[in-house]
Amino acid sequence: MGKQVNLGFLGCGNIGGGVWHLLDEMHDEILRRDGLDLRVKRALVKSIPEARTDVPAAILTERAEDVLDDPEIAIVCEFMGGEQPAARFMQAALEKGKTVVTANKMALALQWHALRAAAEKTGAGLYHEASVGGVIPVIRTLAISLEADRIHRVMGIVNGTTNYILTRMTQEGSGYAETLADAQRLGLAEPDPTADVEGYDAAYKLSILSSLAFHTHVPYAKIYREGISAVTAEDIACGRDMGYVLKLLAIGKRDGDEIEVRVHPTFLPETHPLAKVDGSLNAIHLHGDYCQDMMLQGRGAGDKPTASAICGDIVFAALHLDNPTVPSFPNTAEADPSLTFTDDWQSRYLVRMSAQDTPGVLAKVAAVLAEEKISIASVQQKGVRDGRAPVALITHETSERAMRRAVERLQGDHVRVESVIRVEGM
Amino acid sequence: MGKQVNLGFLGCGNIGGGVWHLLDEMHDEILRRDGLDLRVKRALVKSIPEARTDVPAAILTERAEDVLDDPEIAIVCEFMGGEQPAARFMQAALEKGKTVVTANKMALALQWHALRAAAEKTGAGLYHEASVGGVIPVIRTLAISLEADRIHRVMGIVNGTTNYILTRMTQEGSGYAETLADAQRLGLAEPDPTADVEGYDAAYKLSILSSLAFHTHVPYAKIYREGISAVTAEDIACGRDMGYVLKLLAIGKRDGDEIEVRVHPTFLPETHPLAKVDGSLNAIHLHGDYCQDMMLQGRGAGDKPTASAICGDIVFAALHLDNPTVPSFPNTAEADPSLTFTDDWQSRYLVRMSAQDTPGVLAKVAAVLAEEKISIASVQQKGVRDGRAPVALITHETSERAMRRAVERLQGDHVRVESVIRVEGM
Repeated sequence: MGKQVNLGFLGCGNIGGGVWHLLDEMHDEILRRDGLDLRVKRALVKSIPEARTDVPAAILTERAEDVLDDPEIAIVCEFMGGEQPAARFMQAALEKGKTVVTANKMALALQWHALRAAAEKTGAGLYHEASVGGVIPVIRTLAISLEADRIHRVMGIVNGTTNYILTRMTQEGSGYAETLADAQRLGLAEPDPTADVEGYDAAYKLSILSSLAFHTHVPYAKIYREGISAVTAEDIACGRDMGYVLKLLAIGKRDGDEIEVRVHPTFLPETHPLAKVDGSLNAIHLHGDYCQDMMLQGRGAGDKPTASAICGDIVFAALHLDNPTVPSFPNTAEADPSLTFTDDWQSRYLVRMSAQDTPGVLAKVAAVLAEEKISIASVQQKGVRDGRAPVALITHETSERAMRRAVERLQGDHVRVESVIRVEGM
Repeated sequence: MGKQVNLGFLGCGNIGGGVWHLLDEMHDEILRRDGLDLRVKRALVKSIPEARTDVPAAILTERAEDVLDDPEIAIVCEFMGGEQPAARFMQAALEKGKTVVTANKMALALQWHALRAAAEKTGAGLYHEASVGGVIPVIRTLAISLEADRIHRVMGIVNGTTNYILTRMTQEGSGYAETLADAQRLGLAEPDPTADVEGYDAAYKLSILSSLAFHTHVPYAKIYREGISAVTAEDIACGRDMGYVLKLLAIGKRDGDEIEVRVHPTFLPETHPLAKVDGSLNAIHLHGDYCQDMMLQGRGAGDKPTASAICGDIVFAALHLDNPTVPSFPNTAEADPSLTFTDDWQSRYLVRMSAQDTPGVLAKVAAVLAEEKISIASVQQKGVRDGRAPVALITHETSERAMRRAVERLQGDHVRVESVIRVEGM
């Protein structure tokens, strides 16, 4: 008859509903396959009268204690989103020895240390495969499969909304504002899109990914963040002319005791595997000493893919209630003081500018770059418009600070720097 | 100072050496991260005088019993390859309660039921992440992450040698024999390439993959197998003209109680994610009810990537000696009698033929196809050479048997069918 394991839901919206349906459809199969009789005993909702009607009314409650204080509930599944009260509730559950399954990247990125501390007190499990990349099994891959390897770099397309917008801008040559508006109309971007388009969501996920990859807590506050709202159709077209595709990337690199973590629009060579990941798909590219290059791609959002990942966690959690998988690094609130988080990373840059069509302007640009020890890999000038020449150049690898100094010095009447976009992946 | 876990190696060639080096390099880090003091106590080699010299001579032995009968060895890592004596040794280890880690797809595909039975007797673990796709974490993804989902389809590029050959044939327009010879010269194909180029290796891997994906033992003997040795430069060029890329795919599909499993050269639309996986890379594409489309790609071979996957297994195994992860299906020797393994699957086909340039020949081709209820999606004819016209056509979905009947009827003086290649992935 299987081992009965009772679940409690915190929240029962889109994701919670998806999980409920998958558990319902697969109940008998999971019982047969894994000997687990999984039952959703309680589901916390904001308002019972306004709750979804495809979940039995009898399990609904408006009181968090009905989930958190029920000794028969072994696994608490959190679907509320946001930092609080979600983190507080999860912490309370862990302190009572309940295993927690969550997809909440914000609560994890901001409160992971507190959640881990609570889990360690009681030996409870804390699983969050769906917190990064939806159904893509990147958390388990980092925590288990690559545990004996040394990872130097993670690069991910971890936000579907921005990838959808950039893909459409690339395919249609459209501008940012109109494409965002269309994505909102289609329900693919939130009415307030800030968390996605300004890169906050990607930065939460990068904090989680890079902590696991580098075996040390990478606090959210250490992440450089730049969204896509300033990207123009001209930027994308210019990159394409030179063989590059624009993506919002979450990038983490570790070299010895130095770590860099950054989220920003990034040009990739069109042959790079991540350059081909289009629409709302997510993908994570890893590089390690022994594993070398690896890429995982799939649905990063949506109720069904997210439910698949969460239910995978639930089954594993239920089979290992007394022996949970624990990330193997000290999850302190502050970063390990022996590490340096640099904001002066090495990168290549695509610089787009318009220069007054006067003899000597290009020579001046080249001179400033040379003084900053920035060498040019390729340069493109296309005709002259209104007395100004659009110029695009790609640099060899240089330092972020040198680039910023050069841009500051170039900006003026004769040269207008339109955009500076980092280039990765050679 | 950590929990000491002793390992025994069966075989210590390329892969064993890679594992030894990774464990050596990571010993202190694994001790710190996971509290495990992993030690290689014994390594079975064919001949001590001829053994590699970068592994301490003191651990080498020529007697399998020194590994299998040593009660201090908790985990046996098998790197011998081939069905026997590898499977017999692994079975002996499992029957003594030792956990086994292996990358041996042949022994698994042919003796998995016996190995599982031995493991179940003693509760020992049996891990084999590296048996399919090298470092790609597809075994764990199927066994854990997607445990609560229903997978309908797996499609994989699981043999690096054939992918390398086909990629070069595609990029260079070269023939099969010369490309194989070059791959052999570069050490990318074996002196006897049969296991790779005739699809045996891919079929072993498909047996493992589809068993896990479909939660039932898919015996190797049920797999249809066709290699790449008959593929010509003309086939590849013809496909490319029509927008397709040729790959050797391992394909498993399940629809209710019907399963189809097949390894053969396959045309994919050039926009398909697997079509872009080039050279010796491997990739596995999955489709399930809730997870939808997912793809994992990485290094499918090589001592370092394989060692990364094996050592990931070793760490997980050592942390879960008393609570191993067990695939959740009955691994019987014979297939579940309630299932049907069909050899009359549905597919699209690219048919390349040369037709005598006589009025009515194309009409005859169309009539035969129509009689077999095969409808044509697109057709291409390019000029006439020596009185014969090269014709290529792509069919809509039809049945394998109808296609075979049609080809048999078409083949003759007026029409010579040069090749029939299946098309997947719309």
